[in-house]
Amino acid sequence: MKIGVLGTGVVGQTLGAKLVALGHDVMMGGRSATNDKVLAFVEKTGGKAGSFADAAAYGELLIHCTRGDTAIEVLRQAGGDNLAGKILVDISNPLDFSRGFPPSLSISNTDSLGELIQRELPKTHVVKTLNTVTAAIMVDPAMIHGQHSVFVSGNDKYAKGKVMDLLRSFGWQAIIDLGDITSARATEQMLPLWTRLYGVLGTGNFNFAILKA
Amino acid sequence: MKIGVLGTGVVGQTLGAKLVALGHDVMMGGRSATNDKVLAFVEKTGGKAGSFADAAAYGELLIHCTRGDTAIEVLRQAGGDNLAGKILVDISNPLDFSRGFPPSLSISNTDSLGELIQRELPKTHVVKTLNTVTAAIMVDPAMIHGQHSVFVSGNDKYAKGKVMDLLRSFGWQAIIDLGDITSARATEQMLPLWTRLYGVLGTGNFNFAILKA
Repeated sequence: MKIGVLGTGVVGQTLGAKLVALGHDVMMGGRSATNDKVLAFVEKTGGKAGSFADAAAYGELLIHCTRGDTAIEVLRQAGGDNLAGKILVDISNPLDFSRGFPPSLSISNTDSLGELIQRELPKTHVVKTLNTVTAAIMVDPAMIHGQHSVFVSGNDKYAKGKVMDLLRSFGWQAIIDLGDITSARATEQMLPLWTRLYGVLGTGNFNFAILKA
Repeated sequence: MKIGVLGTGVVGQTLGAKLVALGHDVMMGGRSATNDKVLAFVEKTGGKAGSFADAAAYGELLIHCTRGDTAIEVLRQAGGDNLAGKILVDISNPLDFSRGFPPSLSISNTDSLGELIQRELPKTHVVKTLNTVTAAIMVDPAMIHGQHSVFVSGNDKYAKGKVMDLLRSFGWQAIIDLGDITSARATEQMLPLWTRLYGVLGTGNFNFAILKA
């Protein structure tokens, strides 16, 4: 499948490399098509490089993994028309480090970044997922033994089904559909616990398992 | 140990009965000492009954388990002088059902109910815990197989140690000290996920396990 990755950080690089390895045609989009990190991705993986708009136009499915505080600006650069009718996997979190560590959230409780992005792109099927695990775990959940979970939120059932197929191809088994995009509030609000646990455990390579009685 | 339970709902009844069964001297406090639920507790368990102030004066350790929206009023009735120098285990969550289900939080992100209670009672050692599991699991974690976790937040290490001892006496093994009382933000913000999972799983008898790579 043609996949556009919007974001050149650790998450974008890790996901992009995994998608290339799985045989997808991947274009990484950055602020420009000649951005250093985009070119590093091309050199390392053999994937393609473009601007945010190039990658948005190229992909049948898009993955958004820029920082929460740049998300809306990046998606405007990507272009609503390029994203219309497509699935946008949103992995970003609205982390606000302006008060130091641990971060607070710039949007939470009665709204979420997932919902904000869905409102910004009403013709796009936004599916929030993978935002509760670190990049290494996203693409290799088998690093952690046991039935640990990833969550999916979105308004369109077909889009969620396609994203769940993609997650299964990464090795995810315990995928929990939390509901419509408003349920992104629930996973984004896990980040305060995630950052505390990162401090306590001394690693980001952990995840949550849901155990029933 | 003499323990005062502030709250007569399912959490208070369940915890009170468990504490009596473990051999503690328990007084349940309600709006009055002749409140129906308080008297039912006495009849069922052989524990003692009192007002919030009676229970606060009686207990060497106190457990607060009223609803988040009544917490401060209840603690004022209990009386700051009765609570001074003591450990107050806070199990409440700031759930706001005014917009329906799932609830939002009445305080979150850059503050928490745990912190609000600590500010209200500066001479009391507030320890937030157990607020991420349903009452049945609180007192019988062995209902769920595996190393699922309970979290502890508080400013005073000795107080947290005493509360962890109490948790171990309930059967808790994987107890995670998240840090000072500001880390109550993290566990209170798990409630949006908890309520979504309650809907998806069709039961509240579940918990989170933290699995490391």
